[in-house]
Amino acid sequence: MNKIIDGKYYAQELNTSLKNSIEQLNKKRRPKLVIIQIGNNFASNKYIKNKLKACENVGIIGELKKYSEDIKQSELVKQIEILNSDLTIDGIIVQLPLPSHINEKEITDIVSPSKDADGFSPITLGNVMLNKSNIYPATPFGIVKLLDWKKINLIGENVVIIGRSNIVGKPLANMLINRSATVTICNTKTKNLKDICKKADILISAAGSPNLVTKDFVNNNMTVIDVGANFKDGKYCGDVKFEEVLKIVKYITPVPGGVGPMTIACLLENTFNLYKQKEN
Amino acid sequence: MNKIIDGKYYAQELNTSLKNSIEQLNKKRRPKLVIIQIGNNFASNKYIKNKLKACENVGIIGELKKYSEDIKQSELVKQIEILNSDLTIDGIIVQLPLPSHINEKEITDIVSPSKDADGFSPITLGNVMLNKSNIYPATPFGIVKLLDWKKINLIGENVVIIGRSNIVGKPLANMLINRSATVTICNTKTKNLKDICKKADILISAAGSPNLVTKDFVNNNMTVIDVGANFKDGKYCGDVKFEEVLKIVKYITPVPGGVGPMTIACLLENTFNLYKQKEN
Repeated sequence: MNKIIDGKYYAQELNTSLKNSIEQLNKKRRPKLVIIQIGNNFASNKYIKNKLKACENVGIIGELKKYSEDIKQSELVKQIEILNSDLTIDGIIVQLPLPSHINEKEITDIVSPSKDADGFSPITLGNVMLNKSNIYPATPFGIVKLLDWKKINLIGENVVIIGRSNIVGKPLANMLINRSATVTICNTKTKNLKDICKKADILISAAGSPNLVTKDFVNNNMTVIDVGANFKDGKYCGDVKFEEVLKIVKYITPVPGGVGPMTIACLLENTFNLYKQKEN
Repeated sequence: MNKIIDGKYYAQELNTSLKNSIEQLNKKRRPKLVIIQIGNNFASNKYIKNKLKACENVGIIGELKKYSEDIKQSELVKQIEILNSDLTIDGIIVQLPLPSHINEKEITDIVSPSKDADGFSPITLGNVMLNKSNIYPATPFGIVKLLDWKKINLIGENVVIIGRSNIVGKPLANMLINRSATVTICNTKTKNLKDICKKADILISAAGSPNLVTKDFVNNNMTVIDVGANFKDGKYCGDVKFEEVLKIVKYITPVPGGVGPMTIACLLENTFNLYKQKEN
């Protein structure tokens, strides 16, 4: 049995399926995603390029709105309001990080919930908690899809999540609670992290800390999901010491090629779901 | 040292302090809370009476809007919209349960977030998750206040919550995650519930199951918060076998007189916070 959960492969399958759905729209207008970028952050440029390319591959219209580094908060708000009321736009995402003079919370709050392709708005997150959403933050959405794809049981299973960010740890915890898992959320203050992790059926590391998860954190029956996206010694890597952990566990996602590709696929799926909500 | 956390006493302290704040408003209008009741549920009548009395005690105007059991969804929506736009009303709560022909989610969603005294709306819950709210579901709000009152440390502590409801377990988990606790949320499918609980520093039972938490669930250093509000053999009781657990643990809330009085005090505090947001 192959232990490695091939997120790249599954993301491509999802993209192909989405592409077919969009082709079948026939004469109707195509879904459209707008990405807002402020300034010219190097990493952002790369992420945005990947997102636009992914849109193109499945037939979603991707458009970049790039604003100057010194745009005023009030002007940015005005621009987003124009995009909110544009009926040809289904999804709007604000590429983070924003310059320090911009109030991030106000900006992400102002994106219309009906266009919240990133799933970061309070109303989307509240509905995620209430199990009443079909839009989810893209990374947790991708993780749950990977677990379902591999038919990994969640009901009654002990899931340990390392990390409590607004875009991964917390929404993911709520989603897995709603799926009847027993969920433990750890953070940098957690005592005996190693011992807590070692007892998990599913361990999800979203700590952003290279080599955090070693062989001492895992067991033979465990599924390990590595959400880390770190650079160490010039190399892209996750949170898990992959080679040594691979030998022990049942399933593991690699970095790259695990959670990463799923995140973009789920962003596209959110956009399509927002499109369908609008068209129905 | 007294082991029993006297929620009744602390709630009265909070109410006295709130009463003083409201008296100091002087000429300004007083805060106002409207309770919507559909039909004539026996338990609801009792809860509403308590809430109205609590309002009166602190100087909040409490008003009951009672509608017939067979009110139509559309008519109820219209009534709530009228209350939403009434500038003299600060808080609106919909007393649950609603009759089965009413769509509860639509009704609670329609209450304006700026008047969401119960803290049940998606946007409030999303902001609770994001740690950006000053309104919280009243029961979790009361629990956190009790822990703070007793100066019980949360940072890095192992908190176990039994129960994952929308009004207690899930919002409470998010609030304690934001306070840097290591939080485990259990449900009826959890394996080895007893063992998981036994290792907690703080155990919070919101299962609604009398006598669930026995001496085998606890340890000497533990704080036990009993959120149960059950009737067994005609007697009001919590989830915890109080007498036997009391002997072992460090702190415990009684039922009645623990979490219950705090819930109403926090509903009043939410109403006052909504009032202040409007007046400022």
